Amino acid sequence: MATGRVAPASVPGTPLLKDELDIVIPAIRSLDFLETWRPFFQHYHLIIVQDGDPSRAIRVPEGFEYELYNRNDVKRILGPRAACISFKDSACRSFGYLVSKKKYVFTIDDDCFVAKDPSGKEINALEQHIKNLLSSSTPFFFNTLYDPYREGADFVRGYPFSLREGVPTAVSHGLWLNIPDYDAPTQLVKPLGRNNRYVDAVLTIPKGSLFPMCGINLAFNRELIGPAMFFGPLGDGELIGRYDDMWAGWCTKVICDHMGWGVKTGLPYIWRNKAINPFLNLKKECNGVYWLEELIPFFQCVTLPKECTTVQKCYIEISKQVKAKLGKLDPYFNKLAEAMVTWIEVWDELNPPTNAPSGPVKGK
Amino acid sequence: MATGRVAPASVPGTPLLKDELDIVIPAIRSLDFLETWRPFFQHYHLIIVQDGDPSRAIRVPEGFEYELYNRNDVKRILGPRAACISFKDSACRSFGYLVSKKKYVFTIDDDCFVAKDPSGKEINALEQHIKNLLSSSTPFFFNTLYDPYREGADFVRGYPFSLREGVPTAVSHGLWLNIPDYDAPTQLVKPLGRNNRYVDAVLTIPKGSLFPMCGINLAFNRELIGPAMFFGPLGDGELIGRYDDMWAGWCTKVICDHMGWGVKTGLPYIWRNKAINPFLNLKKECNGVYWLEELIPFFQCVTLPKECTTVQKCYIEISKQVKAKLGKLDPYFNKLAEAMVTWIEVWDELNPPTNAPSGPVKGK
Repeated sequence: MATGRVAPASVPGTPLLKDELDIVIPAIRSLDFLETWRPFFQHYHLIIVQDGDPSRAIRVPEGFEYELYNRNDVKRILGPRAACISFKDSACRSFGYLVSKKKYVFTIDDDCFVAKDPSGKEINALEQHIKNLLSSSTPFFFNTLYDPYREGADFVRGYPFSLREGVPTAVSHGLWLNIPDYDAPTQLVKPLGRNNRYVDAVLTIPKGSLFPMCGINLAFNRELIGPAMFFGPLGDGELIGRYDDMWAGWCTKVICDHMGWGVKTGLPYIWRNKAINPFLNLKKECNGVYWLEELIPFFQCVTLPKECTTVQKCYIEISKQVKAKLGKLDPYFNKLAEAMVTWIEVWDELNPPTNAPSGPVKGK
Repeated sequence: MATGRVAPASVPGTPLLKDELDIVIPAIRSLDFLETWRPFFQHYHLIIVQDGDPSRAIRVPEGFEYELYNRNDVKRILGPRAACISFKDSACRSFGYLVSKKKYVFTIDDDCFVAKDPSGKEINALEQHIKNLLSSSTPFFFNTLYDPYREGADFVRGYPFSLREGVPTAVSHGLWLNIPDYDAPTQLVKPLGRNNRYVDAVLTIPKGSLFPMCGINLAFNRELIGPAMFFGPLGDGELIGRYDDMWAGWCTKVICDHMGWGVKTGLPYIWRNKAINPFLNLKKECNGVYWLEELIPFFQCVTLPKECTTVQKCYIEISKQVKAKLGKLDPYFNKLAEAMVTWIEVWDELNPPTNAPSGPVKGK
């Protein structure tokens, strides 16, 4: 009875969306981690964005098809507008989204490894993300059996029939096992905290609810929501660090809610081994932790007028509200608002509009 | 770092909330099912509400402490107002909530059995509900590691610090393994559908999002939300069947959102063996399926004014809106609205206000 787009069954030997998806990797080291992902990634095209010193050589294991961009390439391609791309942390991944020509993007960090499910089987994170993206979302009413389109699940009694087709899924947000994604204060208080709980669920984050989007194990429909996936400049060297993905997540969620698209979280898990020094993180996060208390009410109150019928228009509207309402918090937010405008300019230049999906599709 | 009320650890031999919780069971048969629950329920007080013919004797296994009410008792206690209590289906359980004197209620049907977790261990559903109720909820922002107060979990990076205390939990909604809680059309289409997926999660349903609350494996803080837990008359013999718990769930969620309280769903699971005949269910649900498409937009649009500072006031306000907006759908809704008012009258009579919690606590 699940009547929306149901996740495709995987056909052994035929990687799903092989020619329609790029894997974007921000890199500060040689990409030996790809060896562990070889069975799952080898048929896909990689876009590697080198973080930091462009003179350093980054080694990519043989057999992968890739393009690699360093800071010099970004400057060559974007000219003076290259400043909108963060380049002292993984927020540089946004550049990969910009130059991709594919409909879907999966992004993963170079220190993520393959996790195992409770049966001991290695998890093909990319395949699960693709299933999440290719099946519908249900943001307008909560289904207590989680994603109704998964095998073995459905809508439960009391779920309105008119909402069972679902809506397009724009984002699939995956999780981590072992090292958890804690902020510096929590890391300091719980140095031995580990995430060992495998939760076998995917769910749509309801309309109107914000969430902390982590950029490390993330996939999205670039054609739908790409222009909102701007991660910088909120990285290292800025007044606010470790909030690059969060910012993108809040903008994305607000826009998906407006356009009537879904954001899923849950499976797949990846495995993380090593936490970054919490003292360093604390320094990076300091302003963010403080500003967070202003940013959340801000994003909870953003309203996008009906005229915002494309993601670009929504994003420009948010940038205006950032300037008007957060500028007084710190001049940094004026700079950020300007970078948001620049980002949309370069997005449109590198991705000339074709038949971009328009909206908003209004939910009930 | 989880700073709200954290779930208590269980101390072997000391049942949590032994003297503060009633187990309410609507019964149409002898309660042999209690044998399987004995290790978990034996220290708690049971309120059994006999559904249907009062002359039938209902056997309760030895060793349980209980009070049993049949239709004659309800008439004796409520007089002419007994009509507000549904008596041809499990919606009669509401009467148990009314006469309980405890702070918490757990309600379970007489055809539910003990489920096992993936390790094969029997699940103490009541204990998990109590843990859910005694730890805080987080309705204002989604935590991607689910309930942050569970052992081994916490708030992830990007979660606002000001929201980490959480809010009181009013409801804990548990799930079923094996037979899923499907409506008749889904049952008909998927006669062999089974829920075999054990999802090891508890989560707060975000503010503003409605869900289908099933009354079969449910616990709540009666002191907080009891007056909204009215299940009837939406049962058999009425124009709308199998929507008794749904109705209570929508009223409850809207009121919890207004008062700033949380509703959790997920663990614990119970085990169900036998699905009710889908052809019978279809007949019962017919009007409900049709009206559902009006009811959901109605509940999504209910607004409670600031003056509604108690659950009772909220509930009466909803009854007025039911009359005003749903009465035109069918005269049945006028009858329902009147029963809602009667319910609050009898609630207040049997539960004279002491220091009832007042609100609303406003979230962000």
